[in-house]
Amino acid sequence: MPFDMTLVQRGARLRRSPFFAATQRYGAKAYTVYNHMLFPICFADPEEEYWHLVNGVTLWDVSVERQVEITGPDALAFTNMLTPRDLTRCAVGQGKYVVITADDGGIINDPVLLRLGENHFWLALADSDVLLWARGVALNAGLRVTIGEPDVSPLQLQGPKAKEVVRALFGDAALELHYYRFLETALDGIPLVVTRTGWSGEVGYEVYLRDGSRGDELWERIMEAGKVHGIRPTGPSDIRRIEAGILNWGADMTLENNVYEVGLDYLVDEGKGSDYIGRAALERIKTEGVARKLAGIEIAGERIEFNSTRWPVKADDTLVGEVTSAIYSPRLKKNIGYAMLPIEYTRLGTALGVDIPDAGTRRATIVAKPFVDPNKDIPKT
Amino acid sequence: MPFDMTLVQRGARLRRSPFFAATQRYGAKAYTVYNHMLFPICFADPEEEYWHLVNGVTLWDVSVERQVEITGPDALAFTNMLTPRDLTRCAVGQGKYVVITADDGGIINDPVLLRLGENHFWLALADSDVLLWARGVALNAGLRVTIGEPDVSPLQLQGPKAKEVVRALFGDAALELHYYRFLETALDGIPLVVTRTGWSGEVGYEVYLRDGSRGDELWERIMEAGKVHGIRPTGPSDIRRIEAGILNWGADMTLENNVYEVGLDYLVDEGKGSDYIGRAALERIKTEGVARKLAGIEIAGERIEFNSTRWPVKADDTLVGEVTSAIYSPRLKKNIGYAMLPIEYTRLGTALGVDIPDAGTRRATIVAKPFVDPNKDIPKT
Repeated sequence: MPFDMTLVQRGARLRRSPFFAATQRYGAKAYTVYNHMLFPICFADPEEEYWHLVNGVTLWDVSVERQVEITGPDALAFTNMLTPRDLTRCAVGQGKYVVITADDGGIINDPVLLRLGENHFWLALADSDVLLWARGVALNAGLRVTIGEPDVSPLQLQGPKAKEVVRALFGDAALELHYYRFLETALDGIPLVVTRTGWSGEVGYEVYLRDGSRGDELWERIMEAGKVHGIRPTGPSDIRRIEAGILNWGADMTLENNVYEVGLDYLVDEGKGSDYIGRAALERIKTEGVARKLAGIEIAGERIEFNSTRWPVKADDTLVGEVTSAIYSPRLKKNIGYAMLPIEYTRLGTALGVDIPDAGTRRATIVAKPFVDPNKDIPKT
Repeated sequence: MPFDMTLVQRGARLRRSPFFAATQRYGAKAYTVYNHMLFPICFADPEEEYWHLVNGVTLWDVSVERQVEITGPDALAFTNMLTPRDLTRCAVGQGKYVVITADDGGIINDPVLLRLGENHFWLALADSDVLLWARGVALNAGLRVTIGEPDVSPLQLQGPKAKEVVRALFGDAALELHYYRFLETALDGIPLVVTRTGWSGEVGYEVYLRDGSRGDELWERIMEAGKVHGIRPTGPSDIRRIEAGILNWGADMTLENNVYEVGLDYLVDEGKGSDYIGRAALERIKTEGVARKLAGIEIAGERIEFNSTRWPVKADDTLVGEVTSAIYSPRLKKNIGYAMLPIEYTRLGTALGVDIPDAGTRRATIVAKPFVDPNKDIPKT
């Protein structure tokens, strides 16, 4: 029986992905909402999906990663103003994991940026209206840019067998892509961008559909090519991304945080030759040092369920911070996650308590992240 | 059994309202997501909730109407720049239904604005990140403003018996409020703003909680006061709001539309003495006239279910537009709604066809809106 959409929507306010019908047909069991769109988050048990991702190949509908497209003669100068990354060092055909920063250094979003041309950029967004931010900034910026949302909808192909599926679909050129490189291609005339990116910590690719009318066709084409490799549609795996130390905007970082608090220091190109929004604030924060940090945490005791609220963290019965994400890793056989804490509690080995709703206080320890050695595939450039 | 939240959320990304525990306790049956927050949309059958709204009094958790707060010495000048309404004509203690416009005249949001002081404004938002828009605009505006999201969470008290509940809670001062007027008050020390506003077409009030830690207490206090009047928690009623001709941002209007297309012309104060974002575009659009308009539509045949996608509208088998909202009114015993159509198809009485998914084509007719005489209570200033 298809999922009862009235459980998550009322009227036609929320948008559907070009793959929506396919996700229904393949039995999506839950949808959340992300960038004003319905987002299929699981097709089976999350742990079953995790093992399939780790050992096989999975297909995720991440059309909710809406794109902001920036074009026009000053697109490079403008886009370069939005992020601490130095985009003059991003080649055409290359992507970057970036943060979009507010004037106070707060993190507005953490998209994957693709440079499609000298003055042609896409930002594949986390869940905030960067379209409105960018258009607001552009108003008085005195730069000649056009900012809009193109008809572009990504899928993720993730897992060790993703390579074989990509080879079957796009040949060796796609297979040879380096991290954060992409190519513009087509499949049966369906216009696509294929990137070597992902949100899984496994080998992975994203396939950006450039014609929303052909979503169903692309989905079936990929499922067909992946059949021999046991491909399955799943939701994104929070178990796997937490193992890999990957953050989820809105949960692990928000507008209230800056890169130094959440360990994304490497997204600031210190020597950047031009100004950007938030530069003064970030330079000040770096000099002064941060008062809190997102730390890795291991929670003792039996298997926990994925947190759906922030859990209070205590030191000697005093509330000191919050767990932002925590989940059981079946591979590590441990409860792992992140906590935002005053810096003095983030030293490795620090013993703390975590209050789990309706389940009492658990002992917890500060540990290093990532939790799984990332050397085989790091999901960041 | 409480609603299984894993059907709509994954992790702690989505925020919860101060009334979340109460909505769970009172048996919310579905939640959507709005402004990055969980939004309870029904507690019983929507038709049952409709009759209760029309004949009694209902309590809705609309904390998802997040506020953008604008303060600082230039707050009036800045806020006045965001909307075609002339805010110099909005007194302290008064509210206005406004549109926030983009430079091309597109509708970014349609909040209720409250003026709490000479230079102190709240915008109670529909589902888009006006916080980011306003902060982006402010960057180079050269005005001294502070823009943030305060700890403010509205509830709606709607229905003919709302007056009695408000009298019991806040006395005659609240009862005597004119449309779009408000008062700052407290209940057992809980700081509140009470406004004479709503999204129902019925007599109604909103109670803005100013201390999120006291949500449960406020909820129970209101339920207790409403007990004798048969108060019930419900979701917002789309049946009633469509009867009243009220629009839902994201469904009936988006960034792609302007006020002239959706019949919100009265939200432009033509004689406004200062410039605002989108003015030139709106003046041009008004002079040139619009090519499409949102029209009232009546759909023939048996009772329809509330549309969850936009339905194609045809004239002689040619696709000409889309139904944005359509629902069965049990009071009118008709299927009513809105359709965005080329202006030549919006004349009253025009005969069209509507394609309903899995239910074939129905005859439809252009009719006047609102569908129910609004004289008893118009939900707009």
